[in-house]
Amino acid sequence: MRTPAWQRYLPALDWAKGYNRQLLSSDLIAALIVTVMLIPQSLAYAMLAGLPAQMGLYASILPLVVYALFGSSRTLSVGPVAVASLMTAAAIAGVVDAGHADAIGAAIALALLSGLMLIAMGLLRFGFFANFLSHPVVAGFITASGLIIALSQLKHILGVEARGENLLELGISLWRNLHQVNLPTVAIGAGALVFLFWARKGLKGALTGVGFTPANAAVLAKTAPVIVVIVTTVTAYLLNMQVQGVALVGAIPRGLPSLQLPVFSAELWSSLAGSALLISIIGYVESVSVGKTLAAKRRQRIDPDQELIGLGGANVASAVSAGFPVTGGFSRSIVNFDAGAATQAASIFTALGIAFAALFLTPLLYYLPKATLAATIIVAVLSLVDFSLLRQTWRYSKSDFIGLVITIAVTLLLGVEHGVLSGVLASIALHLYKTSHPHIAIVGEVPGTEHFRNILRHNVTTHPQIISLRVDESLYFANAAYLEDKVYALLAENHQVKHVVLMCSAINEIDMSALETLEAINERLTELDLSFHLSEVKGPVMDCLKKTKFLQRLSGQVFLTQHQAIEQLTCASGNNQ
Amino acid sequence: MRTPAWQRYLPALDWAKGYNRQLLSSDLIAALIVTVMLIPQSLAYAMLAGLPAQMGLYASILPLVVYALFGSSRTLSVGPVAVASLMTAAAIAGVVDAGHADAIGAAIALALLSGLMLIAMGLLRFGFFANFLSHPVVAGFITASGLIIALSQLKHILGVEARGENLLELGISLWRNLHQVNLPTVAIGAGALVFLFWARKGLKGALTGVGFTPANAAVLAKTAPVIVVIVTTVTAYLLNMQVQGVALVGAIPRGLPSLQLPVFSAELWSSLAGSALLISIIGYVESVSVGKTLAAKRRQRIDPDQELIGLGGANVASAVSAGFPVTGGFSRSIVNFDAGAATQAASIFTALGIAFAALFLTPLLYYLPKATLAATIIVAVLSLVDFSLLRQTWRYSKSDFIGLVITIAVTLLLGVEHGVLSGVLASIALHLYKTSHPHIAIVGEVPGTEHFRNILRHNVTTHPQIISLRVDESLYFANAAYLEDKVYALLAENHQVKHVVLMCSAINEIDMSALETLEAINERLTELDLSFHLSEVKGPVMDCLKKTKFLQRLSGQVFLTQHQAIEQLTCASGNNQ
Repeated sequence: MRTPAWQRYLPALDWAKGYNRQLLSSDLIAALIVTVMLIPQSLAYAMLAGLPAQMGLYASILPLVVYALFGSSRTLSVGPVAVASLMTAAAIAGVVDAGHADAIGAAIALALLSGLMLIAMGLLRFGFFANFLSHPVVAGFITASGLIIALSQLKHILGVEARGENLLELGISLWRNLHQVNLPTVAIGAGALVFLFWARKGLKGALTGVGFTPANAAVLAKTAPVIVVIVTTVTAYLLNMQVQGVALVGAIPRGLPSLQLPVFSAELWSSLAGSALLISIIGYVESVSVGKTLAAKRRQRIDPDQELIGLGGANVASAVSAGFPVTGGFSRSIVNFDAGAATQAASIFTALGIAFAALFLTPLLYYLPKATLAATIIVAVLSLVDFSLLRQTWRYSKSDFIGLVITIAVTLLLGVEHGVLSGVLASIALHLYKTSHPHIAIVGEVPGTEHFRNILRHNVTTHPQIISLRVDESLYFANAAYLEDKVYALLAENHQVKHVVLMCSAINEIDMSALETLEAINERLTELDLSFHLSEVKGPVMDCLKKTKFLQRLSGQVFLTQHQAIEQLTCASGNNQ
Repeated sequence: MRTPAWQRYLPALDWAKGYNRQLLSSDLIAALIVTVMLIPQSLAYAMLAGLPAQMGLYASILPLVVYALFGSSRTLSVGPVAVASLMTAAAIAGVVDAGHADAIGAAIALALLSGLMLIAMGLLRFGFFANFLSHPVVAGFITASGLIIALSQLKHILGVEARGENLLELGISLWRNLHQVNLPTVAIGAGALVFLFWARKGLKGALTGVGFTPANAAVLAKTAPVIVVIVTTVTAYLLNMQVQGVALVGAIPRGLPSLQLPVFSAELWSSLAGSALLISIIGYVESVSVGKTLAAKRRQRIDPDQELIGLGGANVASAVSAGFPVTGGFSRSIVNFDAGAATQAASIFTALGIAFAALFLTPLLYYLPKATLAATIIVAVLSLVDFSLLRQTWRYSKSDFIGLVITIAVTLLLGVEHGVLSGVLASIALHLYKTSHPHIAIVGEVPGTEHFRNILRHNVTTHPQIISLRVDESLYFANAAYLEDKVYALLAENHQVKHVVLMCSAINEIDMSALETLEAINERLTELDLSFHLSEVKGPVMDCLKKTKFLQRLSGQVFLTQHQAIEQLTCASGNNQ
């Protein structure tokens, strides 16, 4: 019996069938730990996005349930994440400044648009779109975004005002307002920062020291932000720090978000569409890379197209429940995985936990200092910053290095949206540039084999009347003229030549422009009394050539292998002499 | 003695050295014929560009001299051409409507900018830029432009007003003003059209009939526009057609243009920059293709980078002498070539001829009807329209066909600039799409050879424990994930497999993203107790891989040839069993 089509879109059915008590207990424990970690994290990312704290909680309830049903990863945990929140902040700042909407309405519209775009890409199987973000571009973008986020949060640690979407604007704005610095805020913020940085390395050891197993200690160490939240909240309450100018989270409305369809506004939607697309794709790439890593550890697989639907659904869910753009997060998913989550049921339980917090715990968060949240963000994002990849990439590929540097520089100097776009365009342009100047080798036969290699790199046999050329690239419009120039230049240097053999083993396509060039080369060689041959032409390329008159006009032949070409041509030349 | 660097930039030195009386007489005859043909043509293209008639003459004097000195083609004839004039009209309409400049100032600035851009590209050796215009895009663009030009000139034939930059706008505008139709104008215009269409086929025969040699008749037949000009001018004068509402060229200022540097205007220049770049590149591509065709006929060569400098110089010359953008024209160069021009001296003599016309002949052109000029334009551009390439391209390559249709459709519906840009972007996007879904073949050995081919197309030997995969594309960010998916899908179907050999004969590059994917594949296969091997890795690719830890981590080996890989792996498997 075949699986009905609709079941393909509900991966939850796979794990729901065999669900049992043992899985339930693993999932419940993981959910408890993730919930505790998520409460401060969702407040922090709402703050980073420039939105009211409760929106962070809302974005961590319904989206988790929807992803649990439609997502293909068993252990991915979705919700607000650092980079997408920064991009949300940038996108909504634009439309709020232009007066198209308030921040809340813009954030909801952004989540809806990016959800709809992801679902559409999933249904159209357009997941390959994300492949155009090369690894260096993504890595560079995340590193640069991490720096911008860290700098943007410094204002909360110092208790000053600052605004800006790139390193320069932020830096200048901070510098100008430095006189506003509030010492009690700095005390809280710096204390939290120091503790969190220490906790990353030291807390696990301390916990094993007091008797926890290493595995439990590792998971508990991830809850360091919760400890900081509790300690600083209590401190702020006891010392009544509000009076001393420490910014607090303040009153968060109690209760669950009311579900409602976002209002359609052509003006707002069209001005957010570009940003929504970028957030969707960046979020998707980040999420799939986390999902793949986790799936590989348990020999599971994720389905890239189904992931688009799962994440798209999660964003639509976020929009209808007054949230903002969400995606699969790295640290939260790792905690979920390490805490033993076996299925997406863990995410459903986490959603229930956050809902409980929204209903009953928000009054407890009144005295939570914003500086504490900023400290948790800074520590989280600085772990994303990785400059070692500059050296690695430089060593491996100069062109990838250029793409990486452009992405980092533009992101830092002009902001996230320009950064991603420049990175993508630069990597495409560099790729096109490389393929428009393909490597062209003159080849000869490796003695004792039927194998042909570059005459400059190997000791090979050649014949003065024959030039064998191997073009290491498909022939298409961007490099057709380059090949033509190379062939003519070679002929000018080699006067004994009677045959030119184009070895096509690396030619995967010959487009119209290249076909016309080959016809021109053939005509030119015929005028010079030379024959033009092809060898090792691939099946699909040959099929195309057969539809044209090129093969009839070709002055030479098409050989199955380069070896046969040389055997026949040397033999024929021998007879002529 | 080596050629000094500056001489490389002056190709005129090559032909000037051996110049003699015989070359002089050939060049003088060609110049006379081309001059006669050029006078009406330059007036017509100035009218097409929406500029005063004398600017057409000015653009045919100094630019010819400068190209003669710096251009690398011996017989190319530069000056105003149809497509570039249409693009000029579109570009200046924009800035004139915006009030940045008048039409004349805008046209001069456009020529200057496009000249400077071409020279810069030439000095930086950026000629490869033009390669990104694929042949189908250029052909489609020229066909669509031809239709737009023909329709835009219909208003002069009918004697009505009309304006628009695409087929739709022009059509509607013509239809609305059809009531203005002027019958004497239609008589002149239609008469000229009929004669010119007949002349294309019949005049040569008629001339040989009255005793001319076929070669001379062919050249003389090209002067049909001159006959029409004379006949209609005399008719208009004798019948005093001006009074009957026939639009005439009217008074053209006598004399040569005064040389002056165009005024710098940041606003004007920045709003023209995009158009100037498009005109430069399209003009360059058109010109080089004419130049190459002519050079090949006499076994000469043109230097693409020097052509940029030659054409750039010609445009700067046009700007300082009150002209508008120029490039190498197809019909004028053919006439020059067929009339026996041997060197660029012919162009210098032509420039002198046009200068003479500007000084002394303009009063004779007062009664020239605009309808006559429109008829010469229509006949000239309709010869550019070629829809047969739609069928050819459809048969050869669906992706080239899509690019062609997009270019034609967008040019016709939205105008020339959108047309070229869409065509270029579409062809790049289609290329990237294709390379992001590369052909991946499972290969086996052709019996009796060391050659490996696709198991689906050839009778080949395979081994159940080994999968040999040939990826017919360089591995880069856009297709890395695709390869990974394919490999895993294949493993799921083949359970006996112990070795996966990636045959890299068609892999010309492995970028950072692809390297990370290969590492992921290697890790995954190792976990499944399979070994991952490479074969036939190209030199440059191997050099890159050696800089990383990939080769140390690789569970299998790197084989020089696929044949050796299979020999060793089957042997090893045999020993294991």
